Amino acid sequence: MRILIDMDGVLADFEGGFVKEFRKRYPQVPLVPAQGRSEFYIIRKYPHLEESVRQILNSEDFFLNLEAVPGSVEAVQEMTRLDGIEVFICSSPLDEYRHSVVEKYMWVENHLGREWIKKIILTKDKTIINADILIDDRPQVDGVVKEPNWEHVLYDQPYNHMITNKRRLTWNNWREVLLPSLAS
Amino acid sequence: MRILIDMDGVLADFEGGFVKEFRKRYPQVPLVPAQGRSEFYIIRKYPHLEESVRQILNSEDFFLNLEAVPGSVEAVQEMTRLDGIEVFICSSPLDEYRHSVVEKYMWVENHLGREWIKKIILTKDKTIINADILIDDRPQVDGVVKEPNWEHVLYDQPYNHMITNKRRLTWNNWREVLLPSLAS
Repeated sequence: MRILIDMDGVLADFEGGFVKEFRKRYPQVPLVPAQGRSEFYIIRKYPHLEESVRQILNSEDFFLNLEAVPGSVEAVQEMTRLDGIEVFICSSPLDEYRHSVVEKYMWVENHLGREWIKKIILTKDKTIINADILIDDRPQVDGVVKEPNWEHVLYDQPYNHMITNKRRLTWNNWREVLLPSLAS
Repeated sequence: MRILIDMDGVLADFEGGFVKEFRKRYPQVPLVPAQGRSEFYIIRKYPHLEESVRQILNSEDFFLNLEAVPGSVEAVQEMTRLDGIEVFICSSPLDEYRHSVVEKYMWVENHLGREWIKKIILTKDKTIINADILIDDRPQVDGVVKEPNWEHVLYDQPYNHMITNKRRLTWNNWREVLLPSLAS
């Protein structure tokens, strides 16, 4: 079973990193809470501050300094040790790629170790990757292949709760969700 | 028909860029000619200078400054305009990714244009990409999928001439090689 794991919002705490930086730069602006919002793109939560949000996301070290989502690193390492599971990290860089692409590699090296560099796939279109499962927090993962051969399992986040027709997991319950797929 | 196109030695003149830099740094060392050699990895051509070769390949701007292989940019642009062909750029970064990953993005933006950024796939393992054809100069493209669903068409280079069981093309004859596959 080949599993693709997304980075932002799944392995790396993108939302937390953004909030920390936003608080630092704009202490007086009220935050739109993740809880209860239904918008995937952070930039659309702050339409009046679009340029400021973009500056944060495109700033040097933003990706590099993201904390790991609690339990993510341990889960990925445990998963990889299971017989019959093959893990790849599958991430889409920002269009402003100057810092984000290299920092995604650095993040993986720092948190998972150097040998994981070989497991990174950077692509805007994940539908053309051959796998059994894609773990991704994005509500809908589209691309040129209309029926990808992976099952999209949602990484549970407040902003994807409107999706009701997909399985979902967190790093607390991933075994219960994934291991039955492995057995079948 | 989905076509994956490799970068180094196919779109970008990796060998030419290396030779130029090598000449500049080591004018007295005789070059091993590309013609007639059977070794894919440049580093294995200069075993006594391994560290120097590595320094050149890992230096800032090495990838960024590679010339386009003559005809490559025009071929890719023409290919994309053909009905029924979908092109992605599929490249493996060096293990020393510090400069190479971002410079591959910059190279594509400089030579093909900004919209091509979305067509880049960076992966060490190309066998898990779903496509019909992979154009690559590497003699053998291996990975976790033992029988990838693409046909490996060799981009003709002196160092892959020992391979006799694969179709091969250059940017001069790509239409004759690929268009029959499209019609069938």
